[in-house]
Amino acid sequence: MFDTPMLPNGAHYFNGTKETMESAIGTKAASSFSKAIGLTRDAEQFTVVILTYNRDDSLVTILKLLNNCPYLNKVIIVWNNPDRKPEDAWPTLHVPIEFIFPEKNSLLNRFIPYDEIETEAIVSLDDDQNFSHSELVFAFRVWREHRDRLVGFPERYTHMQYGKGKYGLSAVCEYSLILTGFAFMHKEFLYEFTYNQHPSILEHIEKNRNCEDIAMNFLVAHLSRKPPVRMIKKTSSENPQGKQTSGLSGNSTHYSVRSDCVQLFSEIYGYNPLLQSQHQAVPTRGGCMSGL
Amino acid sequence: MFDTPMLPNGAHYFNGTKETMESAIGTKAASSFSKAIGLTRDAEQFTVVILTYNRDDSLVTILKLLNNCPYLNKVIIVWNNPDRKPEDAWPTLHVPIEFIFPEKNSLLNRFIPYDEIETEAIVSLDDDQNFSHSELVFAFRVWREHRDRLVGFPERYTHMQYGKGKYGLSAVCEYSLILTGFAFMHKEFLYEFTYNQHPSILEHIEKNRNCEDIAMNFLVAHLSRKPPVRMIKKTSSENPQGKQTSGLSGNSTHYSVRSDCVQLFSEIYGYNPLLQSQHQAVPTRGGCMSGL
Repeated sequence: MFDTPMLPNGAHYFNGTKETMESAIGTKAASSFSKAIGLTRDAEQFTVVILTYNRDDSLVTILKLLNNCPYLNKVIIVWNNPDRKPEDAWPTLHVPIEFIFPEKNSLLNRFIPYDEIETEAIVSLDDDQNFSHSELVFAFRVWREHRDRLVGFPERYTHMQYGKGKYGLSAVCEYSLILTGFAFMHKEFLYEFTYNQHPSILEHIEKNRNCEDIAMNFLVAHLSRKPPVRMIKKTSSENPQGKQTSGLSGNSTHYSVRSDCVQLFSEIYGYNPLLQSQHQAVPTRGGCMSGL
Repeated sequence: MFDTPMLPNGAHYFNGTKETMESAIGTKAASSFSKAIGLTRDAEQFTVVILTYNRDDSLVTILKLLNNCPYLNKVIIVWNNPDRKPEDAWPTLHVPIEFIFPEKNSLLNRFIPYDEIETEAIVSLDDDQNFSHSELVFAFRVWREHRDRLVGFPERYTHMQYGKGKYGLSAVCEYSLILTGFAFMHKEFLYEFTYNQHPSILEHIEKNRNCEDIAMNFLVAHLSRKPPVRMIKKTSSENPQGKQTSGLSGNSTHYSVRSDCVQLFSEIYGYNPLLQSQHQAVPTRGGCMSGL
Protein backbone atom coordinates (compact mmCIF):
# COMPACT_ATOMS: atom_id res chain seq x y z
CA MET A 1 0.00 0.00 0.00
CA PHE A 2 2.74 2.44 0.93
CA ASP A 3 4.51 1.99 -2.36
CA THR A 4 2.12 1.26 -5.18
CA PRO A 5 3.69 2.74 -8.29
CA MET A 6 1.24 2.96 -11.12
CA LEU A 7 2.12 1.18 -14.32
CA PRO A 8 3.86 3.25 -16.99
CA ASN A 9 1.86 5.58 -19.17
CA GLY A 10 1.60 3.18 -22.09
CA ALA A 11 -0.18 0.52 -20.02
CA HIS A 12 -3.06 2.91 -19.82
CA TYR A 13 -3.96 2.28 -23.44
CA PHE A 14 -3.95 -1.50 -23.59
CA ASN A 15 -6.79 -3.94 -23.06
CA GLY A 16 -7.48 -4.54 -19.41
CA THR A 17 -8.59 -1.05 -18.65
CA LYS A 18 -12.35 -1.10 -18.70
CA GLU A 19 -12.50 1.66 -21.23
CA THR A 20 -9.25 2.75 -22.80
CA MET A 21 -8.50 6.42 -22.69
CA GLU A 22 -7.69 6.33 -26.38
CA SER A 23 -11.41 6.06 -27.03
CA ALA A 24 -12.07 8.85 -24.56
CA ILE A 25 -10.12 11.48 -26.47
CA GLY A 26 -12.19 13.99 -28.35
CA THR A 27 -15.60 15.48 -27.86
CA LYS A 28 -16.92 12.67 -25.70
CA ALA A 29 -13.99 12.94 -23.31
CA ALA A 30 -15.96 13.86 -20.21
CA SER A 31 -18.74 11.32 -20.65
CA SER A 32 -16.30 8.51 -21.42
CA PHE A 33 -14.24 9.55 -18.42
CA SER A 34 -17.13 9.41 -16.01
CA LYS A 35 -17.85 5.85 -17.10
CA ALA A 36 -14.26 4.61 -16.84
CA ILE A 37 -12.24 4.73 -13.63
CA GLY A 38 -9.02 5.23 -15.58
CA LEU A 39 -5.41 5.08 -14.43
CA THR A 40 -3.99 1.59 -14.88
CA ARG A 41 -6.07 -0.60 -12.57
CA ASP A 42 -9.47 -0.15 -14.05
CA ALA A 43 -11.14 -3.20 -12.54
CA GLU A 44 -10.69 -1.97 -8.98
CA GLN A 45 -13.77 -1.57 -6.76
CA PHE A 46 -14.59 -0.30 -3.29
CA THR A 47 -16.63 -1.49 -0.32
CA VAL A 48 -19.09 0.66 1.59
CA VAL A 49 -19.02 0.16 5.37
CA ILE A 50 -21.88 1.70 7.36
CA LEU A 51 -22.03 1.61 11.15
CA THR A 52 -25.67 1.95 12.14
CA TYR A 53 -27.74 2.07 15.30
CA ASN A 54 -31.53 2.40 15.23
CA ARG A 55 -31.79 4.66 12.22
CA ASP A 56 -33.48 2.24 9.85
CA ASP A 57 -35.26 4.88 7.76
CA SER A 58 -32.03 6.74 7.26
CA LEU A 59 -30.24 3.53 6.35
CA VAL A 60 -32.88 2.70 3.75
CA THR A 61 -32.27 6.13 2.21
CA ILE A 62 -28.53 5.49 1.95
CA LEU A 63 -29.01 2.04 0.46
CA LYS A 64 -31.28 3.51 -2.21
CA LEU A 65 -28.61 6.13 -2.96
CA LEU A 66 -26.07 3.35 -3.49
CA ASN A 67 -28.12 1.44 -6.05
CA ASN A 68 -26.23 1.12 -9.35
CA CYS A 69 -23.27 3.13 -8.06
CA PRO A 70 -20.30 2.28 -10.32
CA TYR A 71 -17.26 0.46 -8.86
CA LEU A 72 -19.20 -0.55 -5.77
CA ASN A 73 -18.25 -4.09 -4.74
CA LYS A 74 -20.45 -4.66 -1.71
CA VAL A 75 -22.25 -2.88 1.12
CA ILE A 76 -21.40 -3.94 4.65
CA ILE A 77 -23.78 -2.86 7.39
CA VAL A 78 -22.34 -3.07 10.87
CA TRP A 79 -25.48 -3.47 12.96
CA ASN A 80 -24.48 -1.88 16.23
CA ASN A 81 -27.57 -2.88 18.22
CA PRO A 82 -27.19 -6.37 19.70
CA ASP A 83 -30.68 -6.14 21.24
CA ARG A 84 -32.57 -5.98 17.99
CA LYS A 85 -32.22 -7.80 14.68
CA PRO A 86 -32.83 -5.92 11.44
CA GLU A 87 -36.11 -6.46 9.66
CA ASP A 88 -36.05 -8.00 6.23
CA ALA A 89 -37.40 -5.08 4.25
CA TRP A 90 -34.19 -3.61 2.81
CA PRO A 91 -33.84 -2.31 -0.73
CA THR A 92 -32.32 -4.68 -3.26
CA LEU A 93 -29.11 -3.41 -4.84
CA HIS A 94 -27.01 -4.45 -7.83
CA VAL A 95 -24.42 -5.71 -5.31
CA PRO A 96 -24.71 -7.75 -2.10
CA ILE A 97 -25.68 -6.16 1.21
CA GLU A 98 -24.07 -8.04 4.08
CA PHE A 99 -24.90 -7.53 7.75
CA ILE A 100 -22.34 -7.84 10.51
CA PHE A 101 -23.72 -8.43 14.02
CA PRO A 102 -21.17 -7.41 16.65
CA GLU A 103 -21.60 -8.79 20.15
CA LYS A 104 -21.74 -5.34 21.67
CA ASN A 105 -22.52 -1.79 20.66
CA SER A 106 -19.14 -0.12 20.11
CA LEU A 107 -17.71 2.61 17.92
CA LEU A 108 -14.69 0.37 17.44
CA ASN A 109 -16.88 -1.91 15.29
CA ARG A 110 -16.64 0.74 12.59
CA PHE A 111 -12.99 -0.01 11.87
CA ILE A 112 -12.71 -3.79 12.20
CA PRO A 113 -11.09 -5.37 9.10
CA TYR A 114 -13.97 -7.75 8.46
CA ASP A 115 -13.22 -10.73 6.24
CA GLU A 116 -16.29 -9.71 4.28
CA ILE A 117 -14.35 -6.69 2.95
CA GLU A 118 -12.84 -8.00 -0.28
CA THR A 119 -11.38 -4.77 -1.67
CA GLU A 120 -8.42 -2.63 -0.65
CA ALA A 121 -10.58 0.50 -0.74
CA ILE A 122 -13.31 0.98 1.82
CA VAL A 123 -15.48 4.02 2.27
CA SER A 124 -16.76 4.61 5.77
CA LEU A 125 -20.21 6.23 5.75
CA ASP A 126 -22.24 7.57 8.66
CA ASP A 127 -25.77 6.19 8.66
CA ASP A 128 -27.18 9.68 8.00
CA GLN A 129 -24.92 10.62 5.07
CA ASN A 130 -26.08 12.15 1.83
CA PHE A 131 -24.03 11.95 -1.38
CA SER A 132 -24.21 11.52 -5.14
CA HIS A 133 -22.67 8.72 -7.21
CA SER A 134 -20.31 11.33 -8.68
CA GLU A 135 -19.08 12.25 -5.23
CA LEU A 136 -18.41 8.64 -4.26
CA VAL A 137 -16.70 7.86 -7.56
CA PHE A 138 -14.64 11.05 -7.49
CA ALA A 139 -13.54 10.32 -3.90
CA PHE A 140 -12.56 6.82 -5.07
CA ARG A 141 -10.59 8.27 -8.00
CA VAL A 142 -8.70 10.64 -5.71
CA TRP A 143 -8.05 7.85 -3.18
CA ARG A 144 -6.57 5.71 -5.97
CA GLU A 145 -3.88 8.38 -6.37
CA HIS A 146 -3.43 8.64 -2.58
CA ARG A 147 -3.80 5.11 -1.28
CA ASP A 148 -1.99 5.83 1.97
CA ARG A 149 -4.22 8.74 3.00
CA LEU A 150 -7.75 9.39 4.14
CA VAL A 151 -9.79 11.02 1.37
CA GLY A 152 -13.15 12.55 2.18
CA PHE A 153 -15.29 15.37 3.43
CA PRO A 154 -15.54 17.48 5.53
CA GLU A 155 -12.24 18.47 7.12
CA ARG A 156 -11.31 19.56 10.64
CA TYR A 157 -8.11 20.73 12.31
CA THR A 158 -6.34 20.63 15.64
CA HIS A 159 -4.31 23.39 17.21
CA MET A 160 -2.51 24.11 20.44
CA GLN A 161 -3.81 26.48 23.07
CA TYR A 162 -1.86 27.13 26.28
CA GLY A 163 0.16 24.00 25.55
CA LYS A 164 -2.88 21.74 25.20
CA GLY A 165 -4.20 20.05 22.09
CA LYS A 166 -7.45 21.52 20.82
CA TYR A 167 -9.90 20.27 18.23
CA GLY A 168 -11.65 22.68 15.90
CA LEU A 169 -14.16 23.09 13.14
CA SER A 170 -12.99 23.86 9.65
CA ALA A 171 -12.88 27.62 10.17
CA VAL A 172 -9.44 28.03 8.61
CA CYS A 173 -7.86 27.40 5.25
CA GLU A 174 -5.61 24.59 6.46
CA TYR A 175 -6.87 21.25 7.72
CA SER A 176 -5.36 18.14 9.23
CA LEU A 177 -8.26 15.72 9.76
CA ILE A 178 -11.06 14.27 7.65
CA LEU A 179 -14.22 13.09 9.38
CA THR A 180 -14.89 9.40 8.80
CA GLY A 181 -18.59 9.81 8.05
CA PHE A 182 -17.61 10.08 4.38
CA ALA A 183 -14.02 8.90 3.98
CA PHE A 184 -12.11 6.47 1.81
CA MET A 185 -9.29 4.51 3.41
CA HIS A 186 -7.18 1.43 2.77
CA LYS A 187 -8.33 -1.78 4.49
CA GLU A 188 -4.78 -2.10 5.86
CA PHE A 189 -5.49 0.81 8.21
CA LEU A 190 -8.40 -1.13 9.71
CA TYR A 191 -5.95 -3.87 10.74
CA GLU A 192 -3.61 -1.31 12.23
CA PHE A 193 -6.47 0.41 14.03
CA THR A 194 -7.90 -2.77 15.51
CA TYR A 195 -4.81 -4.84 16.26
CA ASN A 196 -1.80 -2.51 16.48
CA GLN A 197 -3.15 0.57 18.16
CA HIS A 198 -2.32 1.48 21.74
CA PRO A 199 -4.95 -0.15 23.99
CA SER A 200 -5.40 3.08 25.96
CA ILE A 201 -6.65 4.76 22.80
CA LEU A 202 -9.15 1.99 22.10
CA GLU A 203 -10.25 2.08 25.73
CA HIS A 204 -10.72 5.86 25.66
CA ILE A 205 -12.88 5.63 22.53
CA GLU A 206 -14.95 2.86 24.06
CA LYS A 207 -15.42 4.66 27.35
CA ASN A 208 -16.26 8.07 25.89
CA ARG A 209 -18.12 6.82 22.83
CA ASN A 210 -16.29 9.38 20.71
CA CYS A 211 -13.05 10.15 18.82
CA GLU A 212 -12.67 6.94 16.80
CA ASP A 213 -12.29 9.21 13.77
CA ILE A 214 -9.61 11.35 15.42
CA ALA A 215 -7.76 8.16 16.35
CA MET A 216 -7.92 6.95 12.73
CA ASN A 217 -6.57 10.29 11.50
CA PHE A 218 -3.70 10.12 14.02
CA LEU A 219 -2.91 6.56 12.98
CA VAL A 220 -2.88 7.22 9.23
CA ALA A 221 -0.82 10.42 9.58
CA HIS A 222 1.63 8.66 11.90
CA LEU A 223 2.13 5.78 9.45
CA SER A 224 2.15 7.75 6.21
CA ARG A 225 3.53 11.13 7.41
CA LYS A 226 1.11 12.77 5.00
CA PRO A 227 -1.97 14.93 5.54
CA PRO A 228 -5.43 13.69 4.53
CA VAL A 229 -7.09 14.86 1.31
CA ARG A 230 -10.23 16.92 1.43
CA MET A 231 -12.30 16.61 -1.73
CA ILE A 232 -15.00 18.85 -3.12
CA LYS A 233 -18.50 17.71 -2.12
CA LYS A 234 -21.66 19.57 -3.03
CA THR A 235 -24.61 17.61 -1.68
CA SER A 236 -25.39 18.55 1.91
CA SER A 237 -23.84 16.10 4.33
CA GLU A 238 -26.91 14.72 6.05
CA ASN A 239 -29.76 12.99 4.30
CA PRO A 240 -33.34 14.08 5.08
CA GLN A 241 -33.87 11.07 7.35
CA GLY A 242 -30.61 11.72 9.16
CA LYS A 243 -31.63 15.25 10.02
CA GLN A 244 -34.43 13.97 12.25
CA THR A 245 -31.96 12.83 14.88
CA SER A 246 -29.19 15.07 16.13
CA GLY A 247 -25.68 13.63 15.91
CA LEU A 248 -22.98 13.63 18.53
CA SER A 249 -21.65 16.98 17.35
CA GLY A 250 -24.86 18.70 18.46
CA ASN A 251 -23.82 18.09 22.06
CA SER A 252 -22.50 21.19 23.85
CA THR A 253 -19.53 19.32 25.33
CA HIS A 254 -18.61 17.85 21.92
CA TYR A 255 -15.59 20.08 21.29
CA SER A 256 -14.12 19.78 24.77
CA VAL A 257 -14.49 15.98 24.66
CA ARG A 258 -12.73 15.91 21.32
CA SER A 259 -10.02 18.32 22.46
CA ASP A 260 -9.36 15.94 25.35
CA CYS A 261 -8.93 13.14 22.81
CA VAL A 262 -6.41 15.21 20.81
CA GLN A 263 -4.47 15.91 24.00
CA LEU A 264 -4.55 12.30 25.22
CA PHE A 265 -3.68 10.75 21.86
CA SER A 266 -0.80 13.24 21.43
CA GLU A 267 0.56 12.20 24.83
CA ILE A 268 0.30 8.51 23.96
CA TYR A 269 1.96 8.98 20.55
CA GLY A 270 4.54 11.34 22.07
CA TYR A 271 3.61 13.97 19.50
CA ASN A 272 0.68 15.13 17.41
CA PRO A 273 1.28 13.32 14.11
CA LEU A 274 -1.33 15.24 12.12
CA LEU A 275 -0.02 17.18 9.13
CA GLN A 276 -1.67 20.10 7.39
CA SER A 277 -2.90 20.48 3.86
CA GLN A 278 -3.86 23.78 2.26
CA HIS A 279 -5.74 22.60 -0.79
CA GLN A 280 -8.56 20.29 -1.77
CA ALA A 281 -9.05 17.91 -4.70
CA VAL A 282 -11.43 18.98 -7.47
CA PRO A 283 -12.03 17.38 -10.90
CA THR A 284 -9.66 18.64 -13.60
CA ARG A 285 -12.40 20.51 -15.41
CA GLY A 286 -16.14 21.09 -15.43
CA GLY A 287 -18.12 18.20 -16.87
CA CYS A 288 -15.61 15.55 -15.82
CA MET A 289 -17.71 14.47 -12.84
CA SER A 290 -21.40 15.25 -13.05
CA GLY A 291 -22.37 17.94 -10.55
CA LEU A 292 -18.86 18.53 -9.20
CA MET B 1 13.78 16.45 -1.56
CA PHE B 2 12.28 13.02 -2.09
CA ASP B 3 11.65 12.53 1.60
CA THR B 4 10.92 15.78 3.34
CA PRO B 5 8.57 14.93 6.19
CA MET B 6 6.97 18.01 7.61
CA LEU B 7 7.45 18.69 11.29
CA PRO B 8 4.74 17.40 13.64
CA ASN B 9 1.52 19.30 14.02
CA GLY B 10 2.54 21.09 17.20
CA ALA B 11 5.55 22.76 15.54
CA HIS B 12 3.06 24.69 13.50
CA TYR B 13 2.10 26.82 16.48
CA PHE B 14 5.50 27.85 17.80
CA ASN B 15 7.54 30.91 17.01
CA GLY B 16 9.43 30.54 13.77
CA THR B 17 6.40 30.39 11.59
CA LYS B 18 5.95 33.85 10.18
CA GLU B 19 2.44 34.08 11.43
CA THR B 20 1.26 31.33 13.72
CA MET B 21 -1.94 29.62 12.77
CA GLU B 22 -3.17 30.08 16.32
CA SER B 23 -3.66 33.73 15.51
CA ALA B 24 -5.35 32.81 12.26
CA ILE B 25 -8.23 30.95 13.87
CA GLY B 26 -11.52 32.77 13.94
CA THR B 27 -13.19 35.31 11.74
CA LYS B 28 -9.98 36.58 10.17
CA ALA B 29 -8.92 33.08 9.19
CA ALA B 30 -8.82 33.64 5.44
CA SER B 31 -7.03 36.98 5.52
CA SER B 32 -4.45 35.74 8.03
CA PHE B 33 -3.96 32.65 5.91
CA SER B 34 -3.27 34.56 2.74
CA LYS B 35 -0.54 36.51 4.55
CA ALA B 36 1.16 33.48 6.10
CA ILE B 37 2.57 30.62 4.05
CA GLY B 38 1.78 28.15 6.82
CA LEU B 39 2.84 24.53 7.27
CA THR B 40 6.03 24.32 9.31
CA ARG B 41 8.65 26.07 7.17
CA ASP B 42 7.23 29.52 7.01
CA ALA B 43 10.38 31.37 6.03
CA GLU B 44 10.69 29.52 2.73
CA GLN B 45 10.78 31.54 -0.49
CA PHE B 46 10.87 30.87 -4.22
CA THR B 47 12.84 32.12 -7.21
CA VAL B 48 11.30 33.21 -10.49
CA VAL B 49 13.24 32.10 -13.58
CA ILE B 50 12.23 33.68 -16.90
CA LEU B 51 13.78 32.68 -20.20
CA THR B 52 13.37 35.61 -22.58
CA TYR B 53 14.22 36.47 -26.15
CA ASN B 54 13.39 39.86 -27.66
CA ARG B 55 10.12 40.44 -25.87
CA ASP B 56 11.18 43.36 -23.71
CA ASP B 57 7.72 44.93 -23.42
CA SER B 58 6.26 41.64 -22.32
CA LEU B 59 9.07 41.14 -19.83
CA VAL B 60 8.45 44.57 -18.33
CA THR B 61 4.81 43.59 -17.85
CA ILE B 62 5.78 40.43 -15.97
CA LEU B 63 8.28 42.24 -13.78
CA LYS B 64 5.60 44.75 -12.81
CA LEU B 65 3.28 41.85 -11.95
CA LEU B 66 5.94 40.44 -9.64
CA ASN B 67 6.41 43.61 -7.61
CA ASN B 68 5.66 42.99 -3.92
CA CYS B 69 4.73 39.36 -4.53
CA PRO B 70 5.03 37.58 -1.15
CA TYR B 71 7.65 34.83 -0.66
CA LEU B 72 9.52 35.91 -3.78
CA ASN B 73 13.27 35.67 -3.19
CA LYS B 74 14.68 36.89 -6.48
CA VAL B 75 13.92 37.17 -10.19
CA ILE B 76 16.38 35.59 -12.59
CA ILE B 77 16.14 36.62 -16.21
CA VAL B 78 17.88 34.28 -18.61
CA TRP B 79 18.64 36.60 -21.50
CA ASN B 80 18.62 34.26 -24.46
CA ASN B 81 19.88 36.73 -27.05
CA PRO B 82 23.70 36.86 -27.10
CA ASP B 83 23.61 39.49 -29.86
CA ARG B 84 21.95 42.20 -27.82
CA LYS B 85 22.36 43.38 -24.25
CA PRO B 86 19.31 44.45 -22.27
CA GLU B 87 18.67 48.13 -21.81
CA ASP B 88 18.75 49.55 -18.33
CA ALA B 89 15.14 50.63 -18.06
CA TRP B 90 13.66 47.75 -16.04
CA PRO B 91 11.14 48.17 -13.25
CA THR B 92 12.52 48.20 -9.72
CA LEU B 93 11.16 45.43 -7.52
CA HIS B 94 11.23 44.71 -3.78
CA VAL B 95 13.70 41.90 -4.57
CA PRO B 96 16.78 41.72 -6.82
CA ILE B 97 16.48 41.14 -10.55
CA GLU B 98 19.54 39.29 -11.83
CA PHE B 99 20.38 38.77 -15.49
CA ILE B 100 22.09 35.66 -16.80
CA PHE B 101 23.81 35.98 -20.19
CA PRO B 102 24.26 32.57 -21.80
CA GLU B 103 26.81 32.25 -24.57
CA LYS B 104 24.24 30.98 -27.02
CA ASN B 105 20.50 31.07 -27.57
CA SER B 106 19.21 27.71 -26.31
CA LEU B 107 16.06 26.35 -24.71
CA LEU B 108 18.32 24.35 -22.42
CA ASN B 109 19.27 27.61 -20.70
CA ARG B 110 15.83 27.53 -19.08
CA PHE B 111 16.72 24.62 -16.82
CA ILE B 112 20.33 25.27 -15.81
CA PRO B 113 20.78 25.17 -11.99
CA TYR B 114 22.31 28.63 -11.81
CA ASP B 115 24.27 29.42 -8.65
CA GLU B 116 22.17 32.56 -8.46
CA ILE B 117 19.15 30.40 -7.51
CA GLU B 118 19.29 30.37 -3.71
CA THR B 119 15.99 28.62 -2.97
CA GLU B 120 14.83 25.04 -3.38
CA ALA B 121 11.66 26.20 -5.14
CA ILE B 122 11.86 27.77 -8.55
CA VAL B 123 8.98 28.80 -10.75
CA SER B 124 9.63 28.73 -14.46
CA LEU B 125 7.69 31.45 -16.29
CA ASP B 126 7.34 32.06 -20.01
CA ASP B 127 8.13 35.64 -20.93
CA ASP B 128 4.52 36.20 -22.02
CA GLN B 129 2.80 34.80 -18.90
CA ASN B 130 0.00 36.47 -17.03
CA PHE B 131 -0.81 35.65 -13.40
CA SER B 132 -1.90 37.08 -10.07
CA HIS B 133 0.05 37.07 -6.80
CA SER B 134 -2.59 34.68 -5.42
CA GLU B 135 -1.93 32.25 -8.23
CA LEU B 136 1.83 32.29 -7.68
CA VAL B 137 1.49 31.95 -3.91
CA PHE B 138 -1.12 29.21 -4.18
CA ALA B 139 1.08 27.29 -6.63
CA PHE B 140 3.95 27.69 -4.15
CA ARG B 141 1.75 26.41 -1.29
CA VAL B 142 0.73 23.34 -3.29
CA TRP B 143 4.33 22.71 -4.35
CA ARG B 144 5.42 22.79 -0.69
CA GLU B 145 3.17 19.76 -0.15
CA HIS B 146 4.45 18.10 -3.34
CA ARG B 147 8.14 18.97 -3.48
CA ASP B 148 8.98 16.12 -5.83
CA ARG B 149 6.45 17.06 -8.50
CA LEU B 150 5.83 19.75 -11.07
CA VAL B 151 2.99 22.04 -9.97
CA GLY B 152 1.47 24.44 -12.45
CA PHE B 153 -0.89 25.26 -15.26
CA PRO B 154 -2.04 24.28 -17.83
CA GLU B 155 -1.90 20.52 -18.24
CA ARG B 156 -1.39 18.27 -21.27
CA TYR B 157 -1.38 14.53 -21.86
CA THR B 158 0.24 11.91 -24.02
CA HIS B 159 -1.40 8.84 -25.46
CA MET B 160 -0.56 6.00 -27.81
CA GLN B 161 -1.86 5.75 -31.34
CA TYR B 162 -0.95 2.81 -33.56
CA GLY B 163 1.88 2.00 -31.17
CA LYS B 164 3.39 5.49 -31.34
CA GLY B 165 3.57 8.10 -28.61
CA LYS B 166 1.30 11.08 -29.23
CA TYR B 167 1.11 14.45 -27.53
CA GLY B 168 -2.22 16.12 -26.94
CA LEU B 169 -4.01 19.16 -25.66
CA SER B 170 -5.92 18.97 -22.42
CA ALA B 171 -9.13 17.70 -24.02
CA VAL B 172 -9.65 14.95 -21.45
CA CYS B 173 -10.18 14.72 -17.72
CA GLU B 174 -6.85 13.04 -17.04
CA TYR B 175 -3.48 14.68 -17.56
CA SER B 176 0.14 13.67 -17.31
CA LEU B 177 2.17 16.79 -18.13
CA ILE B 178 2.31 20.38 -16.92
CA LEU B 179 3.64 23.04 -19.27
CA THR B 180 6.69 24.81 -17.87
CA GLY B 181 5.53 28.32 -18.78
CA PHE B 182 3.99 28.49 -15.30
CA ALA B 183 5.38 25.65 -13.20
CA PHE B 184 7.01 25.23 -9.81
CA MET B 185 9.79 22.67 -9.49
CA HIS B 186 12.62 21.76 -7.15
CA LYS B 187 16.07 23.12 -8.07
CA GLU B 188 17.37 19.54 -7.79
CA PHE B 189 15.53 18.69 -11.00
CA LEU B 190 17.50 21.39 -12.82
CA TYR B 191 20.73 19.56 -11.91
CA GLU B 192 19.28 16.29 -13.10
CA PHE B 193 18.03 17.88 -16.30
CA THR B 194 21.32 19.58 -17.14
CA TYR B 195 23.91 17.06 -15.94
CA ASN B 196 22.28 13.63 -15.71
CA GLN B 197 19.94 13.53 -18.66
CA HIS B 198 20.61 11.42 -21.73
CA PRO B 199 22.62 13.56 -24.18
CA SER B 200 20.39 12.50 -27.08
CA ILE B 201 17.46 14.17 -25.35
CA LEU B 202 19.39 17.41 -24.84
CA GLU B 203 20.57 17.25 -28.43
CA HIS B 204 17.04 16.70 -29.75
CA ILE B 205 15.74 19.72 -27.79
CA GLU B 206 18.59 21.86 -29.05
CA LYS B 207 18.16 20.79 -32.65
CA ASN B 208 14.37 21.10 -32.78
CA ARG B 209 14.08 24.09 -30.46
CA ASN B 210 11.17 22.40 -28.72
CA CYS B 211 10.16 19.83 -26.07
CA GLU B 212 12.34 20.95 -23.16
CA ASP B 213 9.14 20.95 -21.10
CA ILE B 214 8.19 17.42 -22.17
CA ALA B 215 11.70 16.29 -21.26
CA MET B 216 11.38 17.88 -17.80
CA ASN B 217 8.03 16.13 -17.26
CA PHE B 218 9.54 12.79 -18.29
CA LEU B 219 12.49 13.32 -15.96
CA VAL B 220 10.43 14.29 -12.90
CA ALA B 221 7.93 11.46 -13.42
CA HIS B 222 10.76 8.97 -13.94
CA LEU B 223 12.49 10.02 -10.71
CA SER B 224 9.43 10.49 -8.51
CA ARG B 225 7.00 7.98 -10.08
CA LYS B 226 4.25 10.50 -9.45
CA PRO B 227 2.08 12.58 -11.78
CA PRO B 228 2.36 16.38 -11.87
CA VAL B 229 -0.18 18.57 -10.08
CA ARG B 230 -2.42 20.86 -12.05
CA MET B 231 -3.64 23.81 -10.01
CA ILE B 232 -6.58 26.12 -10.56
CA LYS B 233 -5.62 29.30 -12.43
CA LYS B 234 -8.08 31.97 -13.45
CA THR B 235 -6.15 34.77 -15.15
CA SER B 236 -5.71 34.12 -18.85
CA SER B 237 -2.33 32.61 -19.60
CA GLU B 238 -0.80 35.23 -21.83
CA ASN B 239 -0.29 38.84 -20.87
CA PRO B 240 -1.44 41.57 -23.28
CA GLN B 241 2.11 42.15 -24.49
CA GLY B 242 2.66 38.44 -25.01
CA LYS B 243 -0.35 38.17 -27.28
CA GLN B 244 1.33 40.37 -29.87
CA THR B 245 3.72 37.61 -30.85
CA SER B 246 2.52 34.11 -31.56
CA GLY B 247 4.19 31.35 -29.56
CA LEU B 248 5.58 28.06 -30.78
CA SER B 249 2.24 26.33 -30.29
CA GLY B 250 0.69 28.45 -33.04
CA ASN B 251 2.78 26.54 -35.56
CA SER B 252 0.82 23.96 -37.57
CA THR B 253 3.49 21.29 -37.11
CA HIS B 254 3.62 21.90 -33.35
CA TYR B 255 1.74 18.75 -32.33
CA SER B 256 3.55 16.40 -34.67
CA VAL B 257 6.92 17.78 -33.54
CA ARG B 258 5.92 17.23 -29.93
CA SER B 259 4.53 13.77 -30.64
CA ASP B 260 7.91 12.89 -32.13
CA CYS B 261 9.52 14.03 -28.87
CA VAL B 262 7.19 11.80 -26.83
CA GLN B 263 8.05 8.85 -29.05
CA LEU B 264 11.81 9.50 -29.02
CA PHE B 265 12.03 10.16 -25.27
CA SER B 266 9.97 7.01 -24.58
CA GLU B 267 12.42 4.99 -26.67
CA ILE B 268 15.41 6.47 -24.85
CA TYR B 269 13.87 5.88 -21.40
CA GLY B 270 12.64 2.44 -22.47
CA TYR B 271 9.13 3.39 -21.41
CA ASN B 272 6.88 6.40 -21.11
CA PRO B 273 7.32 7.36 -17.44
CA LEU B 274 4.44 9.87 -17.33
CA LEU B 275 1.68 9.08 -14.84
CA GLN B 276 -1.88 10.35 -14.90
CA SER B 277 -3.76 12.46 -12.42
CA GLN B 278 -7.52 12.96 -12.45
CA HIS B 279 -7.88 15.95 -10.16
CA GLN B 280 -6.52 19.43 -9.68
CA ALA B 281 -5.55 21.43 -6.59
CA VAL B 282 -7.93 24.18 -5.45
CA PRO B 283 -7.89 26.24 -2.21
CA THR B 284 -9.77 24.57 0.65
CA ARG B 285 -12.53 27.15 0.58
CA GLY B 286 -13.56 30.41 -1.04
CA GLY B 287 -11.74 33.42 0.34
CA CYS B 288 -8.59 31.52 1.24
CA MET B 289 -6.73 32.79 -1.81
CA SER B 290 -8.01 36.01 -3.31
CA GLY B 291 -9.62 35.40 -6.70
CA LEU B 292 -9.16 31.62 -6.69
